[in-house]
Amino acid sequence: MQENHGYRAEAEAVRYLTLEDVRDMALGTAFLGSGGGGAPVSALLQLEAALASGRQIKLIDLAAVPDDALIAPCGWMGAPTVSEEKLPNGREAIRGLEKLEEIKGQRVFAVFPVEIGGSNGLSPLLIAAERGIPVVDCDGMGRAFPESQMVVFNVYGCSANPVIVTDEKGNVIVLEAVTNAEEERITRVLSIAMGGSCHVIDYSGSGYQMKQHAVRGTISLAIAVGRAVRLARSAGRDPFAALISCLRSSSYYSHGGVLFDGKIVDLDRNTEGGFAVGRAVLEGFGSTERMVVEFQNENLVARRNGTTVATVPDILTFFDRETAEPITTERLRYGQRLKLVGLSVPPLLRTAQALAVFGPQAFGIAEQYQPIEEINGWL
Amino acid sequence: MQENHGYRAEAEAVRYLTLEDVRDMALGTAFLGSGGGGAPVSALLQLEAALASGRQIKLIDLAAVPDDALIAPCGWMGAPTVSEEKLPNGREAIRGLEKLEEIKGQRVFAVFPVEIGGSNGLSPLLIAAERGIPVVDCDGMGRAFPESQMVVFNVYGCSANPVIVTDEKGNVIVLEAVTNAEEERITRVLSIAMGGSCHVIDYSGSGYQMKQHAVRGTISLAIAVGRAVRLARSAGRDPFAALISCLRSSSYYSHGGVLFDGKIVDLDRNTEGGFAVGRAVLEGFGSTERMVVEFQNENLVARRNGTTVATVPDILTFFDRETAEPITTERLRYGQRLKLVGLSVPPLLRTAQALAVFGPQAFGIAEQYQPIEEINGWL
Repeated sequence: MQENHGYRAEAEAVRYLTLEDVRDMALGTAFLGSGGGGAPVSALLQLEAALASGRQIKLIDLAAVPDDALIAPCGWMGAPTVSEEKLPNGREAIRGLEKLEEIKGQRVFAVFPVEIGGSNGLSPLLIAAERGIPVVDCDGMGRAFPESQMVVFNVYGCSANPVIVTDEKGNVIVLEAVTNAEEERITRVLSIAMGGSCHVIDYSGSGYQMKQHAVRGTISLAIAVGRAVRLARSAGRDPFAALISCLRSSSYYSHGGVLFDGKIVDLDRNTEGGFAVGRAVLEGFGSTERMVVEFQNENLVARRNGTTVATVPDILTFFDRETAEPITTERLRYGQRLKLVGLSVPPLLRTAQALAVFGPQAFGIAEQYQPIEEINGWL
Repeated sequence: MQENHGYRAEAEAVRYLTLEDVRDMALGTAFLGSGGGGAPVSALLQLEAALASGRQIKLIDLAAVPDDALIAPCGWMGAPTVSEEKLPNGREAIRGLEKLEEIKGQRVFAVFPVEIGGSNGLSPLLIAAERGIPVVDCDGMGRAFPESQMVVFNVYGCSANPVIVTDEKGNVIVLEAVTNAEEERITRVLSIAMGGSCHVIDYSGSGYQMKQHAVRGTISLAIAVGRAVRLARSAGRDPFAALISCLRSSSYYSHGGVLFDGKIVDLDRNTEGGFAVGRAVLEGFGSTERMVVEFQNENLVARRNGTTVATVPDILTFFDRETAEPITTERLRYGQRLKLVGLSVPPLLRTAQALAVFGPQAFGIAEQYQPIEEINGWL
């Protein structure tokens, strides 16, 4: 499987995250979210409050997790456009973990983000701080994806069950779905019924199972990315150069580059079936070059003057071209001046099995998948 | 509460239902369904098959249920228009009972219909035959209602939890809702997600609780009604006269009468939000009299020439005027020649508490509730 991908040579087994780490991570998850996962503003504010009140965020390596420990991937489901306005009551995830423990007859040893992207990358840290348990340095998608079955655990044959859905009113739902596709279908409907967002715990399993399948080291990667951008900004260096250089030092997400620099001249975005769906059209400065990016919560495909330059599962994220702040899809606005950054994903997200679940065809995109570094000559 | 309402003086504590009983009951539940609960054709065919294969349907009095026994009201949720075409796989209810037993750590002693109306009145008999457990001679609504919180257990303060929703694919969902209204809202959405119908077990509880609140004797009433009509038909007597006379002998549902005799001249019916919603307009034979009946799965209000002659919770059911076969709302057709029969419901369905939950205002109907026997001078 994905042993020893080792982009983080300096890894410690245990690390307590600081406020600076968390702020750096917010930028990193917004980047790795490929435009999805929701803007991490509210999760970040809650994390800052938790740290200020003396709570600790203990990050541990996947290798440090006992094989028989119960581990719970956590995340919010729904349209980011909704999550911007519908705030959690703070008990949703805790209530879900309690229900999981009741079903399994076992304490949850640790949590991790089901997707490293955006707000969902950060929110499990809050659960860990709240419960006094560790967060594991890994995630289930290696980025963000719009649908719950687009997770490595599904790709490699694990069941989502039991699925625990909770909302801010206090409703608790346990779903045993016949297939992981049914899980997505039913929880999606529930997320809409619950006002457009709800907390979901799915694909929980043993430490052993997580070591087999989880995408390792993505929390520390997100922190490293944010740190590189922050240090570049404060030193007056180009944050995009710092970002790309930081990625190069990762053996796992190593091919990154700026795909376009321009402004939004057309934007079409709707909330459909619980998703933020649409496309953004950018035009270069003083040029007739056009970049069109289609998204379903996440940016899925980018075409420059009609030629495809990247598709899902590779990562495509817009940044403010001055501040290098990532802009998630629900925050795109007409006239914004942006850089579009592309990033290769790890090999386990590019296997035939993986592409069948979250390659271009899973989103109805015609193009066959081709690695971003090949298309753009970054090799 | 509702002790000893005694319309069935000849009640035995235990009775094994025959094929004839079940067929009689199908007519009775279609009548008590007030046009809702779905046409019992498919449930009846399955019951006939179960009896033919040697299974037994054991009907017991509520008084014979031990106080500490676990009792499960059962029923299908969804638009009857859908249930007509989407057939069950036969395992939905059994899987739901197994899940309930797993949660409660107790065997289910007996089942009963959550509503006595239509197909839902009959389907729990099939579960009882399948599992070899009794069906209790009672129900939770004393008729059929379109929404799950319109049940006496909710009126008198019981919780719907745990709610167990199952579908023909094998999905199992356990809901712990914060309120009974939330239960309806969420299970309704699930019923739509599950293709328009699903099996629901809610308001399960102890024998003691059921004795406090259930509407007693409604299964044997349904059988008695069907039997009266059948005997009248075979003797060439007026089945409507036999029906009304049978009801008179019940001290509980004693005021019945024919409200209109005519044909459908206009029919408006849609499947909206998981319900069959609409209205039927009838015109008298050789007269200008008009009867308008509005329905939401069940017939809710009847107005003759603009004057209200009955409202929910009193029962309003269309019958074929020749055969005296009840016609449920999804089977109404333009041009049908029908009699509209009205029936008073028991006092526990007419309290202020009960009317707040399923009186006319709960359906957005302007008229204040007035007992059908008072409006029509049947006293």
